[in-house]
Amino acid sequence: MGGMESKVKAALWALQGGTSVVIANGTHPKVSGHVITDIVEGKKVGTFFSEVKPAGPTVEQQGEMARSGGRTLATLEPEQRAEIIHHLADLLTDQRDEILSANKKDLEEAEGRLAAPLLKRLSLSTSKLNSLAIGLRQIAASSQDSVGRVLRRTRIAKNLELEQVTVPIGVLLVIFESRPDCLPQVGALAIASGNGLLLKGGKEAAHSNRILHLLTQEALSIHGVKEAVQLVNTREEVEDLCRLDKMIDLIIPRGSSQLVRDIQKAAKGIPVMGHSEGICHMYVDAEASVDKASRLVRDSKCEYPAACNALETLLIHRDLLRTPLFDQIIDMLRVEQVKIHAGPKFASYLTFSPSEVKSLRTEYGDLELCIEVVDSVQEAIGHIHKYGSSHTDVIVTENEKTAEFFLQHVDSACVFWNASTRFSDGYRFGLGAEVGISTSRIHARGPVGLEGLLTTKWLLRGEDHVVSDFSEHGTLKYLHESLPVPQRNTN
Amino acid sequence: MGGMESKVKAALWALQGGTSVVIANGTHPKVSGHVITDIVEGKKVGTFFSEVKPAGPTVEQQGEMARSGGRTLATLEPEQRAEIIHHLADLLTDQRDEILSANKKDLEEAEGRLAAPLLKRLSLSTSKLNSLAIGLRQIAASSQDSVGRVLRRTRIAKNLELEQVTVPIGVLLVIFESRPDCLPQVGALAIASGNGLLLKGGKEAAHSNRILHLLTQEALSIHGVKEAVQLVNTREEVEDLCRLDKMIDLIIPRGSSQLVRDIQKAAKGIPVMGHSEGICHMYVDAEASVDKASRLVRDSKCEYPAACNALETLLIHRDLLRTPLFDQIIDMLRVEQVKIHAGPKFASYLTFSPSEVKSLRTEYGDLELCIEVVDSVQEAIGHIHKYGSSHTDVIVTENEKTAEFFLQHVDSACVFWNASTRFSDGYRFGLGAEVGISTSRIHARGPVGLEGLLTTKWLLRGEDHVVSDFSEHGTLKYLHESLPVPQRNTN
Repeated sequence: MGGMESKVKAALWALQGGTSVVIANGTHPKVSGHVITDIVEGKKVGTFFSEVKPAGPTVEQQGEMARSGGRTLATLEPEQRAEIIHHLADLLTDQRDEILSANKKDLEEAEGRLAAPLLKRLSLSTSKLNSLAIGLRQIAASSQDSVGRVLRRTRIAKNLELEQVTVPIGVLLVIFESRPDCLPQVGALAIASGNGLLLKGGKEAAHSNRILHLLTQEALSIHGVKEAVQLVNTREEVEDLCRLDKMIDLIIPRGSSQLVRDIQKAAKGIPVMGHSEGICHMYVDAEASVDKASRLVRDSKCEYPAACNALETLLIHRDLLRTPLFDQIIDMLRVEQVKIHAGPKFASYLTFSPSEVKSLRTEYGDLELCIEVVDSVQEAIGHIHKYGSSHTDVIVTENEKTAEFFLQHVDSACVFWNASTRFSDGYRFGLGAEVGISTSRIHARGPVGLEGLLTTKWLLRGEDHVVSDFSEHGTLKYLHESLPVPQRNTN
Repeated sequence: MGGMESKVKAALWALQGGTSVVIANGTHPKVSGHVITDIVEGKKVGTFFSEVKPAGPTVEQQGEMARSGGRTLATLEPEQRAEIIHHLADLLTDQRDEILSANKKDLEEAEGRLAAPLLKRLSLSTSKLNSLAIGLRQIAASSQDSVGRVLRRTRIAKNLELEQVTVPIGVLLVIFESRPDCLPQVGALAIASGNGLLLKGGKEAAHSNRILHLLTQEALSIHGVKEAVQLVNTREEVEDLCRLDKMIDLIIPRGSSQLVRDIQKAAKGIPVMGHSEGICHMYVDAEASVDKASRLVRDSKCEYPAACNALETLLIHRDLLRTPLFDQIIDMLRVEQVKIHAGPKFASYLTFSPSEVKSLRTEYGDLELCIEVVDSVQEAIGHIHKYGSSHTDVIVTENEKTAEFFLQHVDSACVFWNASTRFSDGYRFGLGAEVGISTSRIHARGPVGLEGLLTTKWLLRGEDHVVSDFSEHGTLKYLHESLPVPQRNTN
């Protein structure tokens, strides 16, 4: 109400006091939406008076560019998307000097402010760029058959045919921490799957990310879809991005499990793909083979203990205590310098006394292992359901019936028999490009390939079909005939 | 800190003032979790002092019962799950008198407090129960091949085989409004797909829901899985349930689009399957056939205007204005008494003047239709992307090239050519049991059958396979051979 002049005066007066102001029309919710909640949710409605100067497009504008760029990307031929990725791979090696000099700036600015392992992740090198380029070419190869694949065909009635085809999800927001090599890799995955992409990198890698993003856009521009991949300004808060549910269809955090947990908490109504925990179990059954068990435990725990698919809890059948099998496992763990934490039941049995576990639900991510005793496969399954994270759980046994019982009953993304937990991985599963591992139960579960970045749409081709013709007194009947699905989309 | 006595005294003193109190241990976050946030999130930790007496199990206990009951349900043979559903169908007709008398109580209590359409939805009848029983038998029939189906098999290496199989999602929370017939139907869908289920019905149907839930549990008990389906107390707030993200894997609101919107807002980190809006478009191209267009518009708009797949916006190519085709459509709409709202461009063309639209993004759900003019198929697509809800959009044309362009470019769950929007439906698509229609881009999209209640898990069967054998200097190489998938699971 009132004149605009008084509003602007009030805004200026507030600004002088250091408070930013929004002037917006809140009188017609049908036309303008719910203005106050929109402003609170960080949308750019009305006029914003602030001392801070905006630079470049707003996130909303970037989201729209990613959406429309992604839509164009999705309608390209698969070969054209592959070409873009190959071109990006070429640029990574051709423009090596520029990339490394930008990266050097980041490293210099980070010097003394970041811990050594973080600096290492931040740093790029010729060999890193080379293997990145090789990875990109693999993504290009596995992208050929992803978008536009026909999954199902049904004849609904004469000349009325239904088709379910794969399509990109839409706009992805990928949030990554210090590693700048994430950018071209994630960019290639989005391009391969025809998705628009918003990238949010860490401040510490700003120079590297800027050049890598420019190269990605250069590659995209060979088919006129430069804007499909957008780099979000480092000023934008992750929490604010996670609220843009009209704009973003899927969030993929790439980084520590803490990052994943933070994003899962911040995401309001936008699905998040990722695993926040990998508490993997191995149950060594009474009928396990001595040599296999020891070999499997060592590979699962010691090969790369920081990985999410590394073993964290070893469940041993009670009958095995004080047998050569058990001694062999304990000796191996000593040799490998694995610190043992005893579960309550295992602790009460021991004469020597390793530290008792603080919690049976711990992801050590290091050369540490919890050992607990169980009386049966049922008890092992109960323990896994109670303390596990539904990531990857393994049974070691020679008894096929026990193994199948375990495989059927354990409710985890990956359940293995006589195999290392470490096979839980997109590349090892043969899924081609690895997008991540998901412990969500919705959409993709377990190791996720390019398929995880796709959804489907239904196409129905008719002549002039109306549903009233199929009513009780209508002239037509539903056929619902399954039709053969082409093995490859030749579109 | 301090003695327990003083804490209890303080609690009693607060109680006398009408304030409930929680006494909980917050000193060891590692052991007890983050107590204050747990309490704020409505979890039952510590000791709760309140004047309100609790009745029956807590929601948390019900969630656990649904989880473990569901897990047992999932390990039954498909025939056993079908038997349970058949038994429930029998009970619905055998126990008709009891059900109808409970329903009568609800109706009597609602009399005068609910509007006539709501009373009608609340009311059950012999014929409603009979058709419900028929629906249940259809669900039983379509459930045979759902859980445990092998989707993919890969030979990773010699004697190391990977399998991806369908499994239930876990625990579903279904929230429904006045219609009590929802309960057995949703119960049957959960049983068919092996999921645990929490049901939250409306207060107004409490008596009916109670007896229908008892019958569902009676049916479940023939295979000892009575607890897989739980009816949540009407006292529990929907908002509180939507916070139980550790307990619930998927929320399915069944009711008005307002309910779906409310739930989508309330759900914290739990995915919601449903469509909040169905703003369906039909684009009549310059090369459309006169008779087809009129027939398709009538069926899409007039056959059942309250449905989410009914037509809301008709886009007409400019060349058609003042042609017989256009006149025929307008005449038909007059005969059918459809109120026309003109889009801005259409309004400026008209000499007569129907009401101009308030918003181009409106779901009328009634005999009302927005008409707008576009200059090309590209403009039609742009309009649909800007104002649509990605539900169902149709092109009417005789030009196959234009049609295919539309099918490829429109980014909606369902895109049709020369067919009524009303085909967008699980039954009409031949998906068997209808779970709902989803406008989400993650997991299920469009009409959803039983598959929408399933996820997958990965089973890996090895001998003693470890990943270090596959390293650069290892003895094994990945084969990643695709293996044939059995056509039906005979498990």
